[in-house]
Amino acid sequence: MNIGILLRTPFFKLVEEIHNTLAEKGYPEIRPAHGNVFQFIGKNGARITDMAKKAHMTKQSMSYLVYYLEEHGYVEQASDDTDARAIIFRLTNKGRKAVDIAEEVIKEVQMKWKKALGKDKYDELWRLLVTLNESLIPSQQKPT
Amino acid sequence: MNIGILLRTPFFKLVEEIHNTLAEKGYPEIRPAHGNVFQFIGKNGARITDMAKKAHMTKQSMSYLVYYLEEHGYVEQASDDTDARAIIFRLTNKGRKAVDIAEEVIKEVQMKWKKALGKDKYDELWRLLVTLNESLIPSQQKPT
Repeated sequence: MNIGILLRTPFFKLVEEIHNTLAEKGYPEIRPAHGNVFQFIGKNGARITDMAKKAHMTKQSMSYLVYYLEEHGYVEQASDDTDARAIIFRLTNKGRKAVDIAEEVIKEVQMKWKKALGKDKYDELWRLLVTLNESLIPSQQKPT
Repeated sequence: MNIGILLRTPFFKLVEEIHNTLAEKGYPEIRPAHGNVFQFIGKNGARITDMAKKAHMTKQSMSYLVYYLEEHGYVEQASDDTDARAIIFRLTNKGRKAVDIAEEVIKEVQMKWKKALGKDKYDELWRLLVTLNESLIPSQQKPT
């Protein structure tokens, strides 16, 4: 047993539940890798380069995911108000509905885990994970 | 913030450190997805079908990973002692060396995180993650 497996198993369980529900509700084209787009596209859309950076992916891999989602109607191209030469991608209505479903599943899973562990242990797990996550941020990037 | 991101960020940080170190030490062909092979191939090798099941992947996706690792000398084919018609894949010496390096990195990262959180908080995080992981196992699969 190692900490990687302990973090990985519940994370992938959550991802599996999100994608099972998306498939059931009529969004079967979305695969776990597309989470990298949905997580970083933001409310006003984003450039492929910026999403790639945030997701620690190559521009090529991110393009592949974004164009797939465009083909299936989850994202669309728009012009960037701050730079006329740049292209941004933003969620379509269909894309926003899929994000809403995913967020709903996350809430349900969190409630289920809270019930399984009990409120005190769940809250303590949350606090310790926040502390661990904060310790991973290089000090120059920490908010002051 | 949600529990998915809290689990995901440290998990991918660990994966990133493993693959940076593997690349530095002369094993640059291994990508994070190959962890699905290394994690489930076992000491005596395994069939593609069985590794696919354990990793919750399609047989096709698992084959793609296994053949890539065979091409680069990390795994090799062998005959299955229990079934002459079946083919199993097992680690080569090169594959075992890569696994040793990955395990070494995991140990180092665990020590680093223990230092960052302090021993008590780290041990508590470990215990709570074990409890969460146990709660995810369907009751009929739990060891008695």
